[in-house]
Amino acid sequence: MEVDLDSFSARDWEGPTDADPMRFAMVGLGWWTREQAIPAVEEADYCATTVLVSSSTEKADELAADLAGVEETLTYEEYADGAATDAYDAVYVCTPNGLHRDHVEAAAAHDKAVLCEKPLEATVEDARASVDACREADVPLMVAYRVQTEPTVRRARELIRDGAIGDVVSVLGHMSDTILDSTDETSWRFDPDLSGGTTINDIGIYPLNTIRFVLEEDPQAVYARTESEQPAYEGTDEHAAFQLEFPDGKLASCTVTHSAAVKSSLRFVGTEGELSIEGLFFPNTRKVLRVSGPDIEGEYRPEPVDQMREEFDYFANRLQRGLDLEPDGEHGMVDMHAVRALYDSAERGRRVELDS
Amino acid sequence: MEVDLDSFSARDWEGPTDADPMRFAMVGLGWWTREQAIPAVEEADYCATTVLVSSSTEKADELAADLAGVEETLTYEEYADGAATDAYDAVYVCTPNGLHRDHVEAAAAHDKAVLCEKPLEATVEDARASVDACREADVPLMVAYRVQTEPTVRRARELIRDGAIGDVVSVLGHMSDTILDSTDETSWRFDPDLSGGTTINDIGIYPLNTIRFVLEEDPQAVYARTESEQPAYEGTDEHAAFQLEFPDGKLASCTVTHSAAVKSSLRFVGTEGELSIEGLFFPNTRKVLRVSGPDIEGEYRPEPVDQMREEFDYFANRLQRGLDLEPDGEHGMVDMHAVRALYDSAERGRRVELDS
Repeated sequence: MEVDLDSFSARDWEGPTDADPMRFAMVGLGWWTREQAIPAVEEADYCATTVLVSSSTEKADELAADLAGVEETLTYEEYADGAATDAYDAVYVCTPNGLHRDHVEAAAAHDKAVLCEKPLEATVEDARASVDACREADVPLMVAYRVQTEPTVRRARELIRDGAIGDVVSVLGHMSDTILDSTDETSWRFDPDLSGGTTINDIGIYPLNTIRFVLEEDPQAVYARTESEQPAYEGTDEHAAFQLEFPDGKLASCTVTHSAAVKSSLRFVGTEGELSIEGLFFPNTRKVLRVSGPDIEGEYRPEPVDQMREEFDYFANRLQRGLDLEPDGEHGMVDMHAVRALYDSAERGRRVELDS
Repeated sequence: MEVDLDSFSARDWEGPTDADPMRFAMVGLGWWTREQAIPAVEEADYCATTVLVSSSTEKADELAADLAGVEETLTYEEYADGAATDAYDAVYVCTPNGLHRDHVEAAAAHDKAVLCEKPLEATVEDARASVDACREADVPLMVAYRVQTEPTVRRARELIRDGAIGDVVSVLGHMSDTILDSTDETSWRFDPDLSGGTTINDIGIYPLNTIRFVLEEDPQAVYARTESEQPAYEGTDEHAAFQLEFPDGKLASCTVTHSAAVKSSLRFVGTEGELSIEGLFFPNTRKVLRVSGPDIEGEYRPEPVDQMREEFDYFANRLQRGLDLEPDGEHGMVDMHAVRALYDSAERGRRVELDS
């Protein structure tokens, strides 16, 4: 067994298409859209940004002036009312979590495919409504788990699926950043109605979803402990540790914090070996994949790829070829339920089972 | 800030002594004593094996025949009755956990210093009695946490103490081995009266104790989940995941299993950086220390040291110089209470606070 370094970053999901580029309406023009999504689409093979949607026409116009190919700038109201629907084929929703539903429902009403940032919504109920709206309108919905199109984790999943480390027994995950330190205290991230939760919800979802993706299984029960040390973070979960119980006795232990150095790691220990990835959850950075097992032993440092570009191209290429999107709405719902159970667990100080 | 590789494995605890080597009675001649402890003492600077104590005189005599310097072989009864007390200065107790107390109490009665394997005993009550017996007899007692004299973890503790990664926020630990697969089902490890528990008790104690050692703090509350998948392990904790809550919101997440590849890792994430150690919990193997922080960035692969030799020499050198032993009985009691709380938590499915 061997990972082919030459094809380490190969797009295993890609196929030929002669369709025109998929035209996106960017809904929400915060820093992530401006600094990550739009530049990624500029570099993408199958996508283009043609519409900008924002609360502020000025902000949208300013951005449009710097960007080739933008045909329309819309307010949220104009977007909701169906303006310029001829100018885009799909929407990318990147607003505060608690506002996703309105924008997704509008896209469904306009018969547009949806790439919606994670988590799907601030509450399970609003997430359910968003997913149902897309299903009823027969509109494709993908949740923007960009790590799922990161080649390093796709290779890790293949290695584990191929038995490189035997049967997985233990999993360890960590993600931390300093986002709260650089965020205004009035940010939507501190407003539970808009965010749905702070650290577990915002970044706990990375190890949670990536472990699900690699194991191709969902958690059956969870436990969490949250801590809030600094006065500015009172009432939010600044730090957290949580456990996920997967089928056949596999246990995952994770830590997440919005108040530590920018670090991420993921480790799978199996009956025959071990696989770890450093730096996985941050876009555009160098990842280090280490694997040791009976038939493979090595360290891989592939050239960084733009996770957002891969995600947009995956979305477009799959739809252009008439194929399903893997992290779909129902996939996203599992995280919604798991995150709710994690907060419930932290509140009650006990293990919480998830309905299967 | 820089780790001096030339002195990476320096014995920061060592000092000059002109005392004769400390003569040990080895109490319990299982594989760990035969294959790890006795060879370590043969290589040690301040120790010698002079007495062998076993249930079987034949086993002891056979071992003595291959070993220079052994003056006496004793049965447990002879040892308890005070035979050959002139032939040894200290005892190393390495029997099934639930038999430690008798041997420690005998050592205390004979006025001999005690190096007792971890955990101290199978129950909190028997551990307490062992510690009290040594205190009342004014006999030094050290619990054999060999990782505490591993240079890699001592350097890690110094780096963290010096602020190399800022304030620690999250900790991740893992240990796994295949010991149950290679162990007879009638082994004492499957008998709770003799072991006090299987995986958390036997190897969970490595991340638990090492995190305490590095942070120089004790856990305030715990949570654990245990799993037992294979029929042979029914009723024992084959796999486990547990969380430890340390002061100031620091959270540690750990996984341990007796049914996976032989792996261990420990990771501290701080406000300014990260420090990890691979392979820490196994003796005589190559460790990899990685640290990244504002003033240090590097990977260290020091020459492996014999953890058991370091432990025996630490014990002897400190006592010869009239100094206290760091992992003493009260230090070991904290783990006894924590492990009991972890099993209690697993049983009840909820967070358990530890008395401070």
